[in-house]
Amino acid sequence: MKSISDILLQRKTIRKYSDRPLDGNLLHDILEKGCRASTTGNMQVYSVIITRDADMKRNLLPLHFNQPMVTEAPVLLTFCADFNRFSKWCRLNNAGPGYDNFLSFFTAATDALLVAQTVCIAAEAEGLGICYLGTATYMADKIIEVLELPRGVVPVTAVTLGWPDEDPEQPDRLPLDAVIHSEVYRDYTEGDIKAFYHEKEERKDSRAFIEENNKTTLAQVFTDVRYKKDDNVYFSKVLLRVLQEQGFMNQ
Amino acid sequence: MKSISDILLQRKTIRKYSDRPLDGNLLHDILEKGCRASTTGNMQVYSVIITRDADMKRNLLPLHFNQPMVTEAPVLLTFCADFNRFSKWCRLNNAGPGYDNFLSFFTAATDALLVAQTVCIAAEAEGLGICYLGTATYMADKIIEVLELPRGVVPVTAVTLGWPDEDPEQPDRLPLDAVIHSEVYRDYTEGDIKAFYHEKEERKDSRAFIEENNKTTLAQVFTDVRYKKDDNVYFSKVLLRVLQEQGFMNQ
Repeated sequence: MKSISDILLQRKTIRKYSDRPLDGNLLHDILEKGCRASTTGNMQVYSVIITRDADMKRNLLPLHFNQPMVTEAPVLLTFCADFNRFSKWCRLNNAGPGYDNFLSFFTAATDALLVAQTVCIAAEAEGLGICYLGTATYMADKIIEVLELPRGVVPVTAVTLGWPDEDPEQPDRLPLDAVIHSEVYRDYTEGDIKAFYHEKEERKDSRAFIEENNKTTLAQVFTDVRYKKDDNVYFSKVLLRVLQEQGFMNQ
Repeated sequence: MKSISDILLQRKTIRKYSDRPLDGNLLHDILEKGCRASTTGNMQVYSVIITRDADMKRNLLPLHFNQPMVTEAPVLLTFCADFNRFSKWCRLNNAGPGYDNFLSFFTAATDALLVAQTVCIAAEAEGLGICYLGTATYMADKIIEVLELPRGVVPVTAVTLGWPDEDPEQPDRLPLDAVIHSEVYRDYTEGDIKAFYHEKEERKDSRAFIEENNKTTLAQVFTDVRYKKDDNVYFSKVLLRVLQEQGFMNQ
């Protein structure tokens, strides 16, 4: 058994999974550990939707931009901010819930994300591989339809889970000093940025990435291909409309 | 050394810390592990502000509603959504960043929260205790001033960190079936809610909580005392204004 240090330090995202099924008891244990994560006021304002059914996966596939791991992984988990259950409990107990506002959404989203990350670490400790799908918020409106999420519930992230069928290289990270600040935020000079991103820019895979995408700098691959302004603006509108429709913008 | 299963299953929040200082190398190792967490497109759009200085802690104390662990813990970490660094890198590389919108804020907040939870688990594996402070978003405007966060940076959560000086009982959790759904969201009947919350309501500490607060149901302690509608509405406005001011609402 690997030590927790090794699990955290050596981890990498897994996008290819073997045919080996994921045992229901193991999944239960992992989720049980996830639900020990910190939660605001012990309210547990989140829900997790488990997708195993092949038809459901096929319905979700285009909503996750056809990323193949959605149908190839034995399990897809969708983590949701959920004030529906808690508010129902309040109403049943002669208490008036005041959670139809943006702060409550953010509180519930935080709860859901801490559970998600704990589930991922618990899974990786068992030798499973995981991959986060940021698309859960891009296509939140359509995911809500497919998963039949009621008012008060919003998907905030999704994760594929299964036994690894690949052993990719670990991706690079910025030097730790690039992301930590002591006492106050020390804003970055041009020299800082150049120094902190130098290694990333010089990597072979980065250079290949620039060439494949017909760009002149690595940053352009992000701004012009992977995370474009027009897409971000469009999906921002979708997500804000979803918050409105799911009842989180009544402040 | 505890197994990772035990660390995750037996964890509890620690609010009282001993005088024992937190070694800088240990903190560095823990943060290094945190930064191995999944991050959107490997952009690492987060920053962590480390507070150790007594004056800084005193400045932050009222912004965290005077919770004593803010000054008593050797270290306070503030986890921030940060598109400032990444956007600067883009501009330096002839690329036009399009990250001044709500989706980008949520992407960066997700990145920051996954790092926060990984840091917490790495810390707990070392025997340290942690406590999340949800107040980081309530008072985001003032925390931005004290920590000198530039445009593009928003605090999303804070965590106190230190050697435990208490061994509280582990808090309860809802039965796992209350928070998981298979394939689609199965909305809760009155009977479901009663069954899932029964154990929580019957607990001795819950009954004491109701009495202390002069309420008739546990839910009323949440709606009338701990997480009130008026406060939520007020802090929603603050947080949305902060997103506007920090440049994340230009969609």
